[in-house]
Amino acid sequence: MTELKVVGKPLPRIEGPEKVTGQTVYAADMQLPGMLHAKVLRCPYPHALIKRIDTSKAKAYPGVVAVVTAEDLPPADRDPSVRPHAVLVEGEAIFEGQAVAAVAAETAYIAEEALDLIEVEYEELPAVLDPEEAIKPGSPFTRRPLEEIDLSEIEGHVTVDISAADDAEAHRRSPNISNRLHFVRGNVEKGFEEADIIVEGRFDSKMAHQAYLEPQACVAHYDATGKLTIWTPTQGQFHQRNDIARILGLPHEKINLVGTEVGGGFGAKVAPLIQPLTALLSMKSGRPVKLVLTRREDLMNSVPAPRGIVQAKIGATKDGRLTAFKGRVIFDSGAFPAGTPVGATMMMAACYKFDHLDVEGIEVLTNKCGAGAYRAPGMPEVTFAIEQLVDEVCRQGGFDPIELRKKNVCREGDLMPNGRPWPKIGLYECLEALEQSELWQTRHQAKNGGKPRGIGVAIGAWPGGMQPASAMVKMNENGTIKVVVGSNDISGVNTSFNMIAAEELGVPMHMVTTITADTDTAPYAGLAAGSKTLYSGGKAVQAAAQDARRQIIAIASRELDANPEDLVIEDGVVFVPGTDKSISFQRIAGLTMGFGSRYAPVVGRGGEVIRNQAPGTTAQAVEVEVDPETGNVTVTRVAAAQDVGKAINRLSIIGQLEGGVTQCLGMGLTEEMIFDERGRMRNPVFLDYRLLTALDVPRIEAIIVEVPSPEGPFGARIAGEPSIIAASAAIANALRDATGLRFYEAPMTPERVLRRLREAGKAVRQPVALGEAAL
Amino acid sequence: MTELKVVGKPLPRIEGPEKVTGQTVYAADMQLPGMLHAKVLRCPYPHALIKRIDTSKAKAYPGVVAVVTAEDLPPADRDPSVRPHAVLVEGEAIFEGQAVAAVAAETAYIAEEALDLIEVEYEELPAVLDPEEAIKPGSPFTRRPLEEIDLSEIEGHVTVDISAADDAEAHRRSPNISNRLHFVRGNVEKGFEEADIIVEGRFDSKMAHQAYLEPQACVAHYDATGKLTIWTPTQGQFHQRNDIARILGLPHEKINLVGTEVGGGFGAKVAPLIQPLTALLSMKSGRPVKLVLTRREDLMNSVPAPRGIVQAKIGATKDGRLTAFKGRVIFDSGAFPAGTPVGATMMMAACYKFDHLDVEGIEVLTNKCGAGAYRAPGMPEVTFAIEQLVDEVCRQGGFDPIELRKKNVCREGDLMPNGRPWPKIGLYECLEALEQSELWQTRHQAKNGGKPRGIGVAIGAWPGGMQPASAMVKMNENGTIKVVVGSNDISGVNTSFNMIAAEELGVPMHMVTTITADTDTAPYAGLAAGSKTLYSGGKAVQAAAQDARRQIIAIASRELDANPEDLVIEDGVVFVPGTDKSISFQRIAGLTMGFGSRYAPVVGRGGEVIRNQAPGTTAQAVEVEVDPETGNVTVTRVAAAQDVGKAINRLSIIGQLEGGVTQCLGMGLTEEMIFDERGRMRNPVFLDYRLLTALDVPRIEAIIVEVPSPEGPFGARIAGEPSIIAASAAIANALRDATGLRFYEAPMTPERVLRRLREAGKAVRQPVALGEAAL
Repeated sequence: MTELKVVGKPLPRIEGPEKVTGQTVYAADMQLPGMLHAKVLRCPYPHALIKRIDTSKAKAYPGVVAVVTAEDLPPADRDPSVRPHAVLVEGEAIFEGQAVAAVAAETAYIAEEALDLIEVEYEELPAVLDPEEAIKPGSPFTRRPLEEIDLSEIEGHVTVDISAADDAEAHRRSPNISNRLHFVRGNVEKGFEEADIIVEGRFDSKMAHQAYLEPQACVAHYDATGKLTIWTPTQGQFHQRNDIARILGLPHEKINLVGTEVGGGFGAKVAPLIQPLTALLSMKSGRPVKLVLTRREDLMNSVPAPRGIVQAKIGATKDGRLTAFKGRVIFDSGAFPAGTPVGATMMMAACYKFDHLDVEGIEVLTNKCGAGAYRAPGMPEVTFAIEQLVDEVCRQGGFDPIELRKKNVCREGDLMPNGRPWPKIGLYECLEALEQSELWQTRHQAKNGGKPRGIGVAIGAWPGGMQPASAMVKMNENGTIKVVVGSNDISGVNTSFNMIAAEELGVPMHMVTTITADTDTAPYAGLAAGSKTLYSGGKAVQAAAQDARRQIIAIASRELDANPEDLVIEDGVVFVPGTDKSISFQRIAGLTMGFGSRYAPVVGRGGEVIRNQAPGTTAQAVEVEVDPETGNVTVTRVAAAQDVGKAINRLSIIGQLEGGVTQCLGMGLTEEMIFDERGRMRNPVFLDYRLLTALDVPRIEAIIVEVPSPEGPFGARIAGEPSIIAASAAIANALRDATGLRFYEAPMTPERVLRRLREAGKAVRQPVALGEAAL
Repeated sequence: MTELKVVGKPLPRIEGPEKVTGQTVYAADMQLPGMLHAKVLRCPYPHALIKRIDTSKAKAYPGVVAVVTAEDLPPADRDPSVRPHAVLVEGEAIFEGQAVAAVAAETAYIAEEALDLIEVEYEELPAVLDPEEAIKPGSPFTRRPLEEIDLSEIEGHVTVDISAADDAEAHRRSPNISNRLHFVRGNVEKGFEEADIIVEGRFDSKMAHQAYLEPQACVAHYDATGKLTIWTPTQGQFHQRNDIARILGLPHEKINLVGTEVGGGFGAKVAPLIQPLTALLSMKSGRPVKLVLTRREDLMNSVPAPRGIVQAKIGATKDGRLTAFKGRVIFDSGAFPAGTPVGATMMMAACYKFDHLDVEGIEVLTNKCGAGAYRAPGMPEVTFAIEQLVDEVCRQGGFDPIELRKKNVCREGDLMPNGRPWPKIGLYECLEALEQSELWQTRHQAKNGGKPRGIGVAIGAWPGGMQPASAMVKMNENGTIKVVVGSNDISGVNTSFNMIAAEELGVPMHMVTTITADTDTAPYAGLAAGSKTLYSGGKAVQAAAQDARRQIIAIASRELDANPEDLVIEDGVVFVPGTDKSISFQRIAGLTMGFGSRYAPVVGRGGEVIRNQAPGTTAQAVEVEVDPETGNVTVTRVAAAQDVGKAINRLSIIGQLEGGVTQCLGMGLTEEMIFDERGRMRNPVFLDYRLLTALDVPRIEAIIVEVPSPEGPFGARIAGEPSIIAASAAIANALRDATGLRFYEAPMTPERVLRRLREAGKAVRQPVALGEAAL
């Protein structure tokens, strides 16, 4: 490989200016001729039977064009156990806010008014709300028992060989268990016997929402020819089309899915949510229909991260060798299975070389909004447990938290809980890098004389998903280059595709533009999820650019009367070094796309399938300050190292790191979907669902580690997900450092922290205890 | 080649249902958020200087967002001699209706009102209106003298080697001559000396409009990032993008041209017309802008066929050998050069083996709406002359009109006027086929006892254009096939692309869908003009399908453990004949596009350049009935034979034949843009510009001749243009047959025919001569 000219530079995202100037057209901004507006009637109970629906008054309301209930769904091979297939309640509503009926009308106001005219008679059923209770014998059912569980949603995010799990199919044990995995290695009891230090605990990470800025939105148009076009922000337009084809019983070629700009997805815009319903309204009305969720609807009815309750125990020798791990995570998946155990069960104990382990993951259904995938699904929850236990081993054994981890973390060839060897990973290197961080190097300085401060460390790993991809690279008439892909850009990846194509073709960055085409016209690509877009799609772009390059070289070779092997491309000019023979891309464009041109147009294609994962790993340190009067925790410093194999675009990687860390800080500090005793969400607005703001997040020391992957483009490996894994655990460890107390519940809100401080007699009483009423 | 399964069948057009049910969304139907509406202020004089423009009142009018004049054009490499570049009058207006200023406002009504507030001071200049006068010394100038003439418009339609012309560059002789070509072979005077029969005449075919149903329309959006998106019906989105890039000084990659469904083009929607102006208004306003011409504007200000005045003479021996041809055509091109002589000069005399010829084509500029390309540009005009002269030779020599032509027409290897040999063509075969037609076989029967009837024959040929093309063929997730092209479907060609891909891939027709993508995402394709889309684009689709097929076979080979050579594809299943080994496309889709798939997605690409033309030829016969009281000519029967090499879709070819013939019948009977003595168009509405209706056109006996081309897909050759060439000449010859009189002016309206009948004493006087006032 010669020296890289473009790849590795820190470059701003190509779609940035449009976004920051408010010019990006999102699905909600769209207008189509004759377009109707939709509103959804939602079930007010967490669990109820629908005895009767009467839509006649709504249908008669002036301005209403279509009213649909489950009866209007076309015959199709729908699986009611899968959230995307549960377009409208068919008899039994299983969470508060589930869609019962929908109206399409000339205006959104008319549609809203018409909802009040729909008469629904419910019979409320007992709601299952506590996941730990739900799996006990005699628990009521969340819903009628299921037959089979579809795991396609989680497979978008992670590929895990679960054949070693002893109980992969045992989820039928309770009708409320939708998924269970169990991996065993060695003899965990023996492992604990070998241990000098044993620590354990029960950890509880609450349900958190992806809290993207753009609510779920969709415009659908089913035209007179039976062609359905859907405009929607999606992380996987081909994936959604595939689902919608099945849900509505339409052939793929009669559906065009146009992925609009995604205003944040993080896993929540993968599978169809409101798209089939919007399409159904268009099929009924024959007109384009727009449905945009309100923030309240979006917070109550989309696909948050599940709550994860972990009971775990870890053993270590007095010289700091981890010997055994036993852990069980119960994911409260709400009304629908999300498959979260598939990745998180194995990865809960995957970072360390335990000779003995016993890990179990259980997904439990309850009558709440169904959970889904949220960036490295399940990992913040399980990491919140194991990394606190590892930290506690360090505390009790007097080990340096980085040194102990360096001693115990897996490297290439070490086994994962499923018995398969780790490929080459950079976890150890991340710990080395974290050790060199400014935060760590200055950890003993600047202790605030006032409020208690502490530093905590946590690590994580994520294998990522695998899916084939293809791409097209073509020359424009002025010699510039266009890259056409079918993946949706949720992370700035199209900028990285530009860079890969520019590098391969020998042109400057400004000569390349990457475009995401719709499913009608784009080469196939998998999900923008599982951190795989750059890893697999980048490889396809690289192959397509190489195909185009060969065509360019062939033309130049004939035009310059030179051997292809002697030709070099630089700055968009093909030349023979040491001679004056040269031809520009612009000239080649003229020779291939004019009247009576001599050569065929340059169009390269790349289809790639990578069959080996390139897991990403991270090591992070967080410094916090605790206010003993209020329980408020302030994150003062963060250092995050991540192995990305090769940073195609350094600026993009830094953004990914900052974003993931910030989301997990939110999970650790404030973000929580709160349900009351009847299963109703109490904080479905951003005033009450507390996101971190710019004021809450300090500068993040982002450290890029590059341990090249064998197959990724230029050695790149997955990058998007690992950053979100570790920060909530690191906060807890920092709080332990600051207060001597361990915190078992996330988010560590002021209320929870203050309660814990008080229980331990470490809170400072305020003269006016204004906050007490809330405690 | 094994037996064809799909290619050659008569299949309905895939986009037909949407069109006939009124569901197709045309550019004029579009709505975009914040979209403005544009109106254009047009010069009321055929020739004038603009002394002053004051737009201040219009700019201040409430609801007006942008007002533009030529001063607002961005700096760019514009060539004012080329129509697309003349976005707005820069000082000198050269035809009535030329755009002087334009307004974008919140509604079209406001924009219209604001036009009245723009003050323009004109100085009227002498208008040049008569093309024959215009080339005489001392004629006023149509406009300031030009430097160079851009021929790119005509090159889209026809590729002609004009190096043999003795005067290709001599158009500077008069500033009103924009183009002149002159081909000489042998010694034409000697040729006439050898002749026993010499006939000559002056023929005049008037300016005709393409009269598409959809007026010119455009929506443009120049967004905050400097990306310009244009939605417009176009026959060549890459071509238009190229032009617009130059006209507005924008790089290609910052322009996306989205070709919307074309409601008729026929050459008039090739080059940009209103698109740069619409874009300019969007650049000024920062908002999307829509401009749709009214029918009046469209008839007065688009790109009609030029008037063609031919003075020609032909000689023949008494045994029916054509010896010499001398002809000169003057095209009245209006205000802009269209390059019409490039194709029509050579083709005027190209069908026959003249030992001696002298053909000259002159394009003259006058102060009328600028002419452009209309389906086989210039050919109906020149054919109206030569085919009448050949007919007159038959009349005077007593030859059968088909026999004489069979004796004299060119075949492969005979020379064209430019000295290059004809490739393989089917002109002789067309005459043979016409001879076998029902019309010809029954020509002596059923003579109407009342009104005079006659039959006339005419032939024609058109070389077509050449331009490279590329295409992509990909598999959908259900195993169906998508073909992605960059050419605009103006003739049902996407249906033919479906058929080509289905044939190559071994799948039934319903498994393939062809889509035209926009310039951002489509593989490059040339113009949908010059009859080349199927000829060159079809080849690219074929190559892309073959590329995809190889990938499919490779996967099947591994899955079935079979040699690729042993595999056969039928009905979307790959199998080994004589065994039970088989795998469906659907299964292959599953193996290439799922999570952890084994193979890369199937995506084929084809880039093709055909460097040899495959001319199309036609032989037509028309039967007419003349009303001697009114001069009205009724076409009672038509037979049209055309060599298309291979009819990929027989139904599509029949449609092309019927459409072209009908257009030329219109040119022959009624269609004419009428200008008054001041150069103003008198009939810019469809009430007065008389198109033929379904009642005027009899059943057309369409005869498909298939003389395969060496390079076209499955032997196909050009198909769209030849059908329009011959019918007006055939009508004139039929009138000669019916009345004994020759008609020298087209269209042969009742007025003209009656006048000629009266001059010859053959009209039947009406008791009440109501029509006389008009004569």
